[in-house]
This record gives sequence, structure tokens and C-alpha cells, in this order.
Amino acid sequence: MTDLVTFGETMLRLSPPDGERLETTDDLEFRAAGAESNVAVAAARLGADAAWTSKLPDSPLGRRVVSGLRRHGVETDVVWTDEGRQGTYYLEHGGKPRGSSVIYDREGAAVTTAETDELPVARVREAEAFHTSGITPALSETLEATTADLLAAARKAGTKTSFDVNYRSKLWSPEEARETLESLFPDVDLLLVAERDARDVLAREGDPEDIAAGLADEFDFETVVVTRGEEGALALHDGETYEQPAIETDTLDPIGTGDAFLGAFLSRRLAGEDVPTALEYGSATAALKRTIPGDVAVVTREEVESVLAEEGGEISR
Amino acid sequence: MTDLVTFGETMLRLSPPDGERLETTDDLEFRAAGAESNVAVAAARLGADAAWTSKLPDSPLGRRVVSGLRRHGVETDVVWTDEGRQGTYYLEHGGKPRGSSVIYDREGAAVTTAETDELPVARVREAEAFHTSGITPALSETLEATTADLLAAARKAGTKTSFDVNYRSKLWSPEEARETLESLFPDVDLLLVAERDARDVLAREGDPEDIAAGLADEFDFETVVVTRGEEGALALHDGETYEQPAIETDTLDPIGTGDAFLGAFLSRRLAGEDVPTALEYGSATAALKRTIPGDVAVVTREEVESVLAEEGGEISR
Amino acid sequence: MTDLVTFGETMLRLSPPDGERLETTDDLEFRAAGAESNVAVAAARLGADAAWTSKLPDSPLGRRVVSGLRRHGVETDVVWTDEGRQGTYYLEHGGKPRGSSVIYDREGAAVTTAETDELPVARVREAEAFHTSGITPALSETLEATTADLLAAARKAGTKTSFDVNYRSKLWSPEEARETLESLFPDVDLLLVAERDARDVLAREGDPEDIAAGLADEFDFETVVVTRGEEGALALHDGETYEQPAIETDTLDPIGTGDAFLGAFLSRRLAGEDVPTALEYGSATAALKRTIPGDVAVVTREEVESVLAEEGGEISR
Amino acid sequence: MTDLVTFGETMLRLSPPDGERLETTDDLEFRAAGAESNVAVAAARLGADAAWTSKLPDSPLGRRVVSGLRRHGVETDVVWTDEGRQGTYYLEHGGKPRGSSVIYDREGAAVTTAETDELPVARVREAEAFHTSGITPALSETLEATTADLLAAARKAGTKTSFDVNYRSKLWSPEEARETLESLFPDVDLLLVAERDARDVLAREGDPEDIAAGLADEFDFETVVVTRGEEGALALHDGETYEQPAIETDTLDPIGTGDAFLGAFLSRRLAGEDVPTALEYGSATAALKRTIPGDVAVVTREEVESVLAEEGGEISR
Amino acid sequence: MTDLVTFGETMLRLSPPDGERLETTDDLEFRAAGAESNVAVAAARLGADAAWTSKLPDSPLGRRVVSGLRRHGVETDVVWTDEGRQGTYYLEHGGKPRGSSVIYDREGAAVTTAETDELPVARVREAEAFHTSGITPALSETLEATTADLLAAARKAGTKTSFDVNYRSKLWSPEEARETLESLFPDVDLLLVAERDARDVLAREGDPEDIAAGLADEFDFETVVVTRGEEGALALHDGETYEQPAIETDTLDPIGTGDAFLGAFLSRRLAGEDVPTALEYGSATAALKRTIPGDVAVVTREEVESVLAEEGGEISR
Amino acid sequence: MTDLVTFGETMLRLSPPDGERLETTDDLEFRAAGAESNVAVAAARLGADAAWTSKLPDSPLGRRVVSGLRRHGVETDVVWTDEGRQGTYYLEHGGKPRGSSVIYDREGAAVTTAETDELPVARVREAEAFHTSGITPALSETLEATTADLLAAARKAGTKTSFDVNYRSKLWSPEEARETLESLFPDVDLLLVAERDARDVLAREGDPEDIAAGLADEFDFETVVVTRGEEGALALHDGETYEQPAIETDTLDPIGTGDAFLGAFLSRRLAGEDVPTALEYGSATAALKRTIPGDVAVVTREEVESVLAEEGGEISR
Repeated sequence: MTDLVTFGETMLRLSPPDGERLETTDDLEFRAAGAESNVAVAAARLGADAAWTSKLPDSPLGRRVVSGLRRHGVETDVVWTDEGRQGTYYLEHGGKPRGSSVIYDREGAAVTTAETDELPVARVREAEAFHTSGITPALSETLEATTADLLAAARKAGTKTSFDVNYRSKLWSPEEARETLESLFPDVDLLLVAERDARDVLAREGDPEDIAAGLADEFDFETVVVTRGEEGALALHDGETYEQPAIETDTLDPIGTGDAFLGAFLSRRLAGEDVPTALEYGSATAALKRTIPGDVAVVTREEVESVLAEEGGEISR
Repeated sequence: MTDLVTFGETMLRLSPPDGERLETTDDLEFRAAGAESNVAVAAARLGADAAWTSKLPDSPLGRRVVSGLRRHGVETDVVWTDEGRQGTYYLEHGGKPRGSSVIYDREGAAVTTAETDELPVARVREAEAFHTSGITPALSETLEATTADLLAAARKAGTKTSFDVNYRSKLWSPEEARETLESLFPDVDLLLVAERDARDVLAREGDPEDIAAGLADEFDFETVVVTRGEEGALALHDGETYEQPAIETDTLDPIGTGDAFLGAFLSRRLAGEDVPTALEYGSATAALKRTIPGDVAVVTREEVESVLAEEGGEISR
Repeated sequence: MTDLVTFGETMLRLSPPDGERLETTDDLEFRAAGAESNVAVAAARLGADAAWTSKLPDSPLGRRVVSGLRRHGVETDVVWTDEGRQGTYYLEHGGKPRGSSVIYDREGAAVTTAETDELPVARVREAEAFHTSGITPALSETLEATTADLLAAARKAGTKTSFDVNYRSKLWSPEEARETLESLFPDVDLLLVAERDARDVLAREGDPEDIAAGLADEFDFETVVVTRGEEGALALHDGETYEQPAIETDTLDPIGTGDAFLGAFLSRRLAGEDVPTALEYGSATAALKRTIPGDVAVVTREEVESVLAEEGGEISR
Repeated sequence: MTDLVTFGETMLRLSPPDGERLETTDDLEFRAAGAESNVAVAAARLGADAAWTSKLPDSPLGRRVVSGLRRHGVETDVVWTDEGRQGTYYLEHGGKPRGSSVIYDREGAAVTTAETDELPVARVREAEAFHTSGITPALSETLEATTADLLAAARKAGTKTSFDVNYRSKLWSPEEARETLESLFPDVDLLLVAERDARDVLAREGDPEDIAAGLADEFDFETVVVTRGEEGALALHDGETYEQPAIETDTLDPIGTGDAFLGAFLSRRLAGEDVPTALEYGSATAALKRTIPGDVAVVTREEVESVLAEEGGEISR
Repeated sequence: MTDLVTFGETMLRLSPPDGERLETTDDLEFRAAGAESNVAVAAARLGADAAWTSKLPDSPLGRRVVSGLRRHGVETDVVWTDEGRQGTYYLEHGGKPRGSSVIYDREGAAVTTAETDELPVARVREAEAFHTSGITPALSETLEATTADLLAAARKAGTKTSFDVNYRSKLWSPEEARETLESLFPDVDLLLVAERDARDVLAREGDPEDIAAGLADEFDFETVVVTRGEEGALALHDGETYEQPAIETDTLDPIGTGDAFLGAFLSRRLAGEDVPTALEYGSATAALKRTIPGDVAVVTREEVESVLAEEGGEISR
Repeated sequence: MTDLVTFGETMLRLSPPDGERLETTDDLEFRAAGAESNVAVAAARLGADAAWTSKLPDSPLGRRVVSGLRRHGVETDVVWTDEGRQGTYYLEHGGKPRGSSVIYDREGAAVTTAETDELPVARVREAEAFHTSGITPALSETLEATTADLLAAARKAGTKTSFDVNYRSKLWSPEEARETLESLFPDVDLLLVAERDARDVLAREGDPEDIAAGLADEFDFETVVVTRGEEGALALHDGETYEQPAIETDTLDPIGTGDAFLGAFLSRRLAGEDVPTALEYGSATAALKRTIPGDVAVVTREEVESVLAEEGGEISR
């Protein structure tokens, strides 16, 4: 039995080196990257038996996605197709005041046609947990229905469901997002939401604790995690609130921080550990992720625990 | 007045270094590449006043295309849009028996919506020559109409029209191609066709000379050029046939050979030189192109003339 | 049930770019590489359910080996240890007359202490086929015993056993090799041997057919494959001899050619195909491998079949 | 009509990656770079119709300079020559306390022989603005005369003249510089000077406002801009003083900051905007430049405006 | 006569670019690196006539070590052998909270068998100074004896002896280290010790001044230098204490800081300068080292003096 | 006593990767390269005690030259100066029909002012052999005189003198070269000349044997070596003629072939071996050089001997 199945789009990420610009660079780094597969990678690397399912073009590009996940020990259960593209995104890292910028080139991706029937629903039902994010239903109407189906199927089978709001303004408006997401929430056990998305998309008010409590009340979530960037995270679980400060980092690549957090959190919860412990692992994994280029947390459980034991930051020799 | 205006899609080309595979490479080379802009680059570098027109997404990717052409002295006259993607293609170079392989990712490209009205038709009318290829009408119905319009407008205005058959089996069937192309031919002055395409797409038979004569007869082309790979090229012009042997090369990157040939050919014709001279320049430019990575012929007229004078191949110091 | 389990050492390969020398290069390419895991990769990529087992140091280096195999779909079943090093080898590619040179730095590798008891013997017993090579018993006395145990266990359980002579003069003398190998042969079903090793190590004489026949007679092999470099390969199976010519290649990296051949051969045999078909796939996979940097055959079954259908060598677009 | 013509030397810049040293690096980054062409690039990218004129060796090195400018939309109007070298400079980036260091290798550059007669003086006369810097007259006696001629011709024709003091201690002493520059000032409309150069070279005293006022008084400049590094800039125009704070940046490459500032400033003035607006654009463009490797500001007007709207610094997705 | 002879192991250092991880990187930087040769490089670059002696495998890897030292002007006096490996180490740079991590792969290195008789003892006797560190006796019993022999021989011949405690927890325990080191101290003139090692390994207490005094008292050192990271260094010499603050740096690569300090210190002492001057040069060289990738201080005496004159940190042009 | 002292200009070589062009590349490889120092490197690597003397700018560029030679074991005896540049050259490798092209940027190099008095003439007198080439006197009038002085001083002191004609058409005409070279020949013991230079510059006729004989007669050379590219080389010594065929190579970088030949030849002659043996070593070293990027022969004597024993070309493992 798989501990965790995640479902969503994984893209290929193209980024120029250093501070170079897309307009002038002659070289691009090439990596697999996707919110839900990032979660699976973090969970797998911290000990969970994690799988990722999706639909990919039967091409070297689709195979590269699979290759990029398998290397981290994630099992891939893919619907191969000759229809549809491999989604990509271009990332330019830029310091202040430039900021980093992302150009999505994901329209018409094969995954946007993924229907429930062709996906490994049985596997979702048999898993301990199922995870997807708010990006998935935003990608196509088909995917909106499929996401709903999978969450419902999981819930019905007793598989715990995890959902990261992950609002992307380039995909839909806050209003569209809110309507769709709230229709999915009844089948969600664990909700992760960035404080900003809670306010701007879910129209929540008050302090983070209020936000968590309000969401838990309204949608009957078992757990709500509110992430707050440099101010850490907060979890509401079974009526208890737990706070977790962020860990200071030298950030090399911030993309995937939330996914690393959630993957680590889930891996600990799946291992039967309590919410505060899961928050700690989430926080440390997220901090490590920020020091590593690419979307995924190439870390080990030992490294995470060493951060928690505050041993990091020096040369060990 | 511009000597030459070319019209078509320019993509961004992504290719792994050396013999690496897309499935496993972490690095991609990034270049602008498109049949008609390749022709403009070769023509510009050999002395023509060349422009390229198209429709591009208003993004760093679209700007990169423009940047990649301008550096060679090609003027760009672009319709910028917020709709549609930037087309890309992935190229893997592979030696025998692997071969090189191309994955097009060009669906939904901004250019596929380019309508005659938004393009610089006046400029086409005022140019000495207008060039496009069989790729352009294959990309969308809109482009099929636009291509026909531009060829007709050019012809009517006395601008010489040049057309490269450039059959792409990933875009359409030989039958579809033939029907469309033959509908365009009445407005074409100069036709360039690879011998294989003449046979497989245009359903021509006989030796290359027969092919050229048959095409010229049927469509009243002023000039027909048949390219034959390592066997060189042949031109039929005003009833005369001219043969041009290929020049031996150490091939590093064959993509764009035909475009280099045609750009050089056109630059010489526009400069008032005769067909045999234009063929020679085409052949030498094509040979040089094959020694250079990327789609475009980064050459000078001096280098082309040095090849014709058989001075190449040694270290000059 | 796994189709194929392979056992042996996988090293990390360090090689300077292009023709650079180790003495002066500032950059090294870094890849996972090992004869038996190369076989597993080729088999997995051509459709077999393949696993690799070994003993690795519990370090980023050991994890890199696993990561380098998993990405190709090979399952890894590893004994992790805090004792022993990760073996490496340095490879300098050099053209004529320099030749390529290899510096092994594999002494004291963790795998040299791998004992039968700690390895997944049950898995070997349940597999359809088990493969190792003459490198494994050459690495340590412990490994000599372990190799013998695993071959015997496999044979006893009805798992087909495959063995590649793979003589390495830097590890042992021909005489030492012959004695050890011949002691293992009674438990081997399929023997693969390079013609040169058959002569120099196994002291065989005559033409390749004689060699195969002599070996089959003496050790009762079900199949003997003799590889002959540019002259192709020959198999003796159930008294029949099959010849397979080599396919012409532009060689970029010859390392791993034999392993690619054998992995492909095994994948076809495991799929129930006959020896001539398996030889064809072996030959095409080996040819493709030579165009790809690194030890492993990053190919697909479609590519292999396209080579067999002689479609390779052109740009497909 | 061209909005802006700039005149000066553009070199090729050679720099080792990261913190590497020239003494030991095996790789150099290669870029075109020159104060006046940097100004043209920034102006062109922000919407001006900008050209650069100079004298270059007729070689791949000279062509590279042209290619490096054209890609940014700068028109190049070059005198090609077989006499004289292509100037280069070597740049080592180093953190504290090493500092960055520059080795100029520009002696005997083709541009040092550029005489007024061979340059496109008519074009300067027809432009709206002409710009050069204190580097140009420092390079040779010929260039000192040519600079004076061009400024005078521009002034006489009603072309606005812009001049950046840009003192380079490796080219001349403060005294030499002062004498020459003051002889040119009567033909200058807009003077840009770093506070330090105003003090050390032009022997000005007092606070920046005093400096600007004193210079404007003495030489009757229409506009004086004093740049003050992290303390921003100050402009005196028509008797009004405007202050512009610097924008905080993560500096990756500080070279070209002043040129980016001035190019953006000029582009806005040429577009008819007022001095405070031009200062804002200058400041934001300068800040963006510092996040980008190379001498030139590879930015868009939208990015500059986004910095002014304080939207930068986050990932937009 | 050589000013300084150093003795110890020099490894080859393999490190992924940027923040990449060993588990996933495809590229490694490759450099020669060793505490005692780092000292020799710094000393040589600052003007000393410095040599390094050791035992190396007769292979491209051993030759690379020699090549990597010679380029800095260090004379190498090497015992070449066919036995034993070339030691390597893998270095991952990581920001907070990851820290940098080092994996030594130095077991069985050729140098571990270096006996006094085969080394150039005469040369040590004739040098002005001899240096080694606490790493050397930790590598093998043979080296423990050899280190003792060389220190004794040097002392007896009037060659000044320098010793850096350089405790490596991956090689031995604090107790083992203390016992061995204290047995060597009677033959040491100059001891350099990090404050932390003084406390944790040598079991010293009190403030740095007490530590230095206690050590000098007990072992009769002529000079004791205590390094204190960002708090600078302190030297006790002939009963006088000298303090040297650290110089602020933008650290790119901290490895080798202490070696750079000591090499510079020794070069000044060998040149007859006093301890405070030597401390200043040590401090400035160490600060510069931290801005340079690799283990060695690729600096010149002019640069060091420019740092001391506080001229660094700006672009000089 | 040094076996061999060579004198001449060493430049820094800048070349784009693969087949890239200077006009468009963003990266350059950076290496030290000079005919006479190439000879010293080859000789040193094959066992001679070799030194190189010249005049260099006191800059990181000059130091890089020294660093690039020292790493190969060549002793450098340099006059450092603040006057004059570091010469460079740009090299583009291009396959047929493009050829490789070289752009020298060596005017005003520091070495062109090197006078006899400042050079280590005593060292030349004490060496066993002194070598320079026809490039040196072509660089400046000062160097013409200095070259003559050094050859005369060497000859007078009994130091054997070696001279490679090395005609460079970019430096002087054949007539100028002939006049100068013939004025130097009376002080030359060993002359090496390419057959083509013998014909085009020295105006020799007949077959290579006639050429050698004619030169030896006229100028009383002890040894004349005529190199003939793929047809090998021929030496006339003490009235005997020896022929040496060329060894087949996969050429990666032909620059420096002749220097490698001569350095190896000299190293063997200095070691007391006969002319045929020296020719063999020269030929094998030259062949190896062609497989190695850069100007210098990064080889060992063992490798050279292995080529002579015809063992190269296979993977040794």
C-alpha cells in the first residue's frame, strides 16, 4: 500500500543561469517541477512511500518528468498519451528590485485532459493519503471535475485528503478560485493555505488563528495549516493551535518552499507523528529547500533532523 | 526600400549539449530559429537589406526572437500580442544510427493568428522580394489565408516572390500540402524545393531537371531551384538549367542548411548577379552553415568568397 | 515478480569534457556507472521489470548511485553501510592514437564486503533471471563467495542465470580469472564473452563458432554469446548458431556497449522472444549506446526498433 | 530622425565566472561594453530611437560589438577599418575586501583614430540629442578633437548635447581631465557627473546642490545631474533642484549603473517628460541594471515602471 | 636554500556548482587542495621560496596535484609510487541552515605510507622553516612517526618548525589527537591553533590570551597564534601578546582560510618582519582567500597590501 | 644547469567552444600559448629541465602566462614590466570548408621591447640548448636584435642553438622573413622548417631531402628537420637522412603540433639519444598533441612510448 498519492501537473522548468535574462541567455537549466510532485518528492525523501499520478505526452519530455521524479524515489503512475503538450515554465531569478519572474507555457498540456476513468483511482482509494492543490482544478474544466472525483473517491475510501490552496493569479481570478475551491473543501481533511491566499482568495479576515479557526469551522477540516513566509506557520488540529517559527535561511531558490514544507509535514503525519513534530519537519525541510536550486527538496531525513538540532551552518569535517 | 521581407514563424530552439538526451540533460542551449528568419539572416549577412515580419507574444520569449534576429542585422517588424504562445522546438543531435530528432512544441503559437490586416503589407509591396515557405500555411487556416494574401499582394505590387516548399510531415500530409501549395504557386516567382519533397509531396517524377522543367511549365515559375543534399543543387531559370555541386563539409549542425542556401542565393540575385553566381554563393553559404551550431549562417561575404576561392580548411595565421 | 535482478558494483564515473586531460581539467562530468547496473538499465528501458542489488555507503555518493539508476526505472535493493567507500573511476576520452584511459579508484568499496546473507536472496530466487559479471568475483574474496552463492541459489530456484565474462586486467590475471570463472560456470545458463576474453582468459581457440561450441560443451551453457566488436556477435543456443552483424555508429562514448547489448538481449528473451530477435535488439541497442555519453543506454524500445527498421540517421521533423 | 546618437568606444569585456581569478580561470564570459553604447542600449530599450556611432576593426571582434548592440535595438553606424585593434577589458568581480578590478587593454583601438570627417556628422545634426562621455576625449588626441567637433556641430544644429564626466584614472590625471572637459563644456546642454568626480576632477566643493549650481552657473548647462551612489541623484534644471533617492538592490554586477541611469533619463526627456520623471526612470533602471550581469540594462519599460510602482521583489506567478 | 618546506597530504577536491547537491549534480569542479600545500601556496605567492613534499600515486591524479601547486610557484618534491590511492574529498557548499559538508575519501592514500627515509629530509634540514599540521599524524601510524621524525630533524638542524593543530573530527577523537599532538609539541617552534580546538582538543581554558600563555609555558613555543574566526587572531611571541582583528569579507568559499593566514604569516616572518606585521598580512590574506573559490589564496602581495591600506572593495578603473 | 632555455612571446589564447563563432559566443576558453613555450612544455614533460624566458606585463594576465607554464614543470625566468600589453590571440575552430581562423592581437606586447641586457643571458650561456623561432624576430626590431644577440651568445658559449622557421604571414612578408632568418642562421645548430615554409619563405626547391641538404650546405647546420604534415618528417644530421612517418590521429586541436614535435625531439637529443629516436618521440608527441585541446602537449613520456609501441587507441581498463 502506498502511503501517499499526489495528483497534478508537473512541468519542465527552464531557467537562465545566475541573474541572466531570458532575452539574452544562451543557456537554460532544465528541471522537472510541479507542486504536487514536489510534495511527493519531499515526502518520499523523508521516508514515505510516495507516488505521483498524472497524464503526460509520450515523448522524451514526458519521460524526462518521470525520470526527474523517480530519481528521488517517487513512484510514477502515468497515463501516456499522444495528445497534448508537455507544459513548461520559464523562471528568471532576479534580486531586489527585479524579483523573480515566471512565464508559464502550460496551455494545452496533456494533463488538462486527464479524466477520472483513466487515472489509477483504485490506487488512490488504497493509499493512506491523497494530495492535490488548487492549481489542478484551475488548469481545465476536465481537471476541475477530475479533482473533485478523486477527492470524493479518496474521502469515501477512507484515504485522508490533503489540499494546498496554491493560488495562481495567472490561471484564474480570486473569485473563480474561491468558488471552485470551496466546492472541493467538503472532501478535504487537511487544508494548507498561505495567509495571503486565505485573505485574497478565500476572503478570510482576522489574525492567522482566526483564519484557521474560521476555515475549520466552515468546512470541517481535520487540520488547517496557515503558512506565513518568514513568520513561520500555524496549524489548527483537533481544536488545538500550534505555531512554528520559520528557520533563517540563505535563500538560493525559493520556488517549492511550500511544497517541501507540506511533503515533510505529510511524511511525518503518515509515520504517525503528531502535528507539532510534523510542523517542525515541515519548517526545517522548507528552510533546506531554499538553499537548493530547483523546485524539489533534495534532502535527507538526517539533514532535516540536524537542522532541528541546530547543527547546520558550519563545515562538518 | 527593403530588399527582402520574409514572413513566417520563428521558434525558440532548445537542445542538449553534445550527444546528451532530453530525458537526462540538465542543460539546454537556447537559440532563435525559423526557416524564413534563417533566410533573412543569411541574406542580411551577405549584404541584403533584409526584414522579417511575424506575430509574437509580448514576453521575454518573443523579445528573445527579435533579439536573436536583430543581432545579425535583420530588421524586425513584429505584431506584438498578449494572445498565443511562443513556439519552441527541442532538438537532439545524434550520430549514426540514432539520427537527430526534433520535437515541435509550436501549437497555439501567436503567429498562427496573424491576419493580413495586422501585418506590414505596405512594406511587402515596397520590397524588392518577399519570401515565405511551406511551413507557414501549414501552421493554421488563418496563416494559410494570410500567406496567400501576402503572396498575391507582393505579386501584384511587382515584388518578386520566393517560396521554399519545406515540407514538414509533422504538420500535414503530403496530400494536404500539395493542394495548398499548388494553390499558392501561381503567385510565386522563385520556387525552391528539395528533390525528395518534389517527389513525395508535389508528386513529380523523373530526374531533377525534369522536375524543375515540369514545375516551371505547370506553374510558370521564373526560377525553380531543386536541392539535392550531397549531390548539390540545380536551377532552371529562363529556360536554362544550371547545376551546382555541393561543397564537402564537416557537419556540426545541419539544421538550416537549405535556408542558408536560399538566403545567400536571394542576396546575390537582389544584388543583380546571375543565377549561376547566386547558386555558388548559396552552395558555399550552406556548406559554411553546416560547420556552425544553431539554425543560422553566422558568416560573412568574405568567408563565403574564400570558400568559393577554395582557401578554406587551413589555419590562417 | 521481478523479471531480472542484477548484482555488482556500481561506481561513480568522473570524466573531463571533450579531449581535456585529468591533469589540467577544472571540470568533471559525474555519472553513475557499473557493468551490472548498466545491464539492468538497458533491460528496464526496453521493457523488463529490472532490479539491481548491491551494497553502498550511506552517503550522498551512495545515494547518487541509486538516484542514477532509479531515474531509468531500475528498482534498487541496496544494503546501506557506514563501512567502506563508494568506488569511483576516472575516464579520459582520447582520440587516436591516445585512446581512452580509465583509472579505477575502487579499492575498499563497500560492495567488496557484501555477504550473501545481507543481500535479497529471496528476491533473486523469485526473479525470472539473475545476472552478474566477471568483475564482481574479482573485487574481493568475499564477493567471490557471494557471487558463487547467488548463482547457485538462483540456479537452484529455477531462476535463469546470466554471466558476462567482462575481464578486467587491472583486477586480476587471466589465470586467476579463468580459475574462478570456471568454478562459477556450472551454475550459469547464459554466458556472454568477448572473443578476445575467450581467447586470452578462457584459453579458447578456433573461430568464434568453435569457441561458443567448446564452451557450451564443456560447461553445458544453454546459451553462449560471443561478441566481436565491429564484427558483430554470434550466439549458440540449443545447438543452433545465430550471427548478428554490428550496426555502423558514430561513436561518442563506447563505454557500456556490451552491457547495453546484453541488457537488451535479456529484455527480449525475458519477453519470450527468440535468440535471433534478442540478438537484433542487443545489436541495435549497443549501436545507439555508442552515440550517447555515459555508461548507460538512454534509449527507448521505439528507437531500437527504428534502428532495426533502418529509419535512423536522418532528422525527423 | 533618430532621437539619440551616442559616440564613443565600445570594448569587449572578458570576465571570469563567479569569484574566479584571471590568473587561474579557464573560462571567460564575453560581452560588448562601452559607456556610450550602454547609454544607447538603455535609451533604446526604454523606447527611444537610439543609434551609436564609432570606428571598429573590420573583424569578428568588431562585428561582435555591433551584434551586441543591435540585439537591443540600437542602430549602429560604424566606420570599419583595417587599422587599429578592438579594445578589450578584463573584469574580475570580487567581494569585500577584494573589490572588483578592471584591466583595460584598449591602447591602439581603432576608435582612437576616428576623425570627424569619417563619422556620420549629418546624422548627429539631425538627431534630437547627442551623447558622449569624458572617456572619449581621454583616449587620444584625435578623439579629443573629434569629440569637440561633434559637440560643436550638434550644438550648432540644435541637437541637445549630453555629456557624462565619467572620469577614468587609468586614462588621465584629474588635471588633464579638467582642462579638456572644461574646454568641451560650453557645447554641452546636459552634464552628468558623479559627486566624487565633481570634487576630485572638476574641483568643486560644497554639498551636491552647490556643486550643481556652481557648474550650471559657470558653464551655462541647461541641466546638471549629480549622481551620488547609494544616496541617489540630484538634478538642477531651469533653476529647480530635484532629488531622487536610490532604490535598494541586490547587486550582481555594478558596472554600467550610471550609463543605465543616463540612458533611461534621456529616453524620458526625449519623450517629452519632465526632469523628476526622468530621474525616477533613471533611478529604477539603474537599480535593475545592478541585478543583471554585463554592462547593459536588459530591461523593459514595463519592468522599470513596475519597480517605480514598487511591485518588484516577489515572484509573480 | 628553500625558505619553507611543508609536508602533508594534498587531496583532489570535487564540488558541485552553486548550491547543487552531490546526489543530483552532473558536474563537479576539480581542484587540488591540502592544508599544508595551501600554506605553501600562500607563502609562495607572498614572496617566499616555498616547497611542498609528499608521496603521490604515479598517475594523472597525482600529477594533477603537482600541477595544481606548481602553477602558484610552489616547488614540489614528491615521492612517486605505484601503491596507494590519490585521496579526494567532496565538498558541498550550502547556505544557512544547510551548511557546507565535506566527505573525505582519503583512506589508503599513497601518502599514508610515507616514511622518513624516502622523503627529502636533507631539504627539510636546510630550509629556514618546516611546516606541517595535525592532519598529517592523524592519517596513519606511519605518518605519525614520520611527522615526529621530520619535526625532530628540522629542530635539530635549526630549521624553525611550524605546526597547525587543524583538528579533524572525522580522523580521530580529541583524546587521541591531544596525546599525539602533545608528543610532537616539544619539537615545535610556532604553534597555530583555533580557539575552539584549543578548548576541545587541547583542553585549554580561559580567554585566548590565557590559552596562548598556557601553551607557550607548557611546551616552550617561541610563538603561539590563536585564531578566533570573525574575532580575529592573537599571537604570543617572546612574552608579548599581539591582537589582530579580522577583516570583513563577502565569503564565497571559506575553506583554506586558516592556511592562507598561516602561509602569509610565515612568508612575512621568513622575510624578517615582526609578528604584528605578519599577523596583518595573515589577516588580509585570509580575508582575500574567502572571496576566492577553491582552497588556495590566489592573491598577490600587492593585493594584500592594498587590503591593509583599506583600498579594496571598490572598482578600480 | 638547465637543459633547455627557450625565448619568445607567449600569448593568451581566447577561443569559443565547439564550432561557435566569435561574433556570437558568450564564452571563451582561456589558455596560455606560445610557440617557444610550447616547445619548453613538451620538453619538460618528456623529462628535460626546461626554462622559458620572456618579458611580461606585471598584471594578472602576465601572471597567468607564468602560471600556465609552471604547471607543466617549466621554469619561468621573466622580466616584469609596467610597459606594454599582454599579447592575445583569438582562435575559432571550424571544420571543412570553414577552416580554423586566428586573429592576433599582439601589437604592443611587452615582449616586443625585450632587450638583451635585461634577459638572463648568463642562463642561456650555461644551458645545454637554446631555442627560439622565426616568430620572435618578426615581432619588433628590438626583438630582431635581441634574437640575434641571444643566438650569438649561446653559440659562443657552446650552447646548442635550435630554431624553428615558423613563418607567420600576418607578421611579415616572405622576403622580409627570408632576409632576417638567413642573417640568423649562421648561429643556428638545429633548424626545423615546414616543407611549405622552406619553399615559400626560404625559396628552396626540390624534394624534402634536397631542401634539407641545401640548407645544411649553405648554413652549415648540424641538423635540419623538415616537417611535412601528414607525410611525416625528415631529418638530416651529420650527412645522414632519417625519415619519420606521421602517426594517424583524430585531430581535436592542431595548434602546437610542430612545437610538440620539436620539444619532444629536443628532450631526447638532450638526453643523449640519437636522431632517429628523437624523431620518433617527436612524431608520437605531435600525434598526441593533436588529440588535446590547447596549444601544449599535456602528455607523459609513458604515453609517448605507448604510442610508439602501438598500444594506444583502445580503452585500457
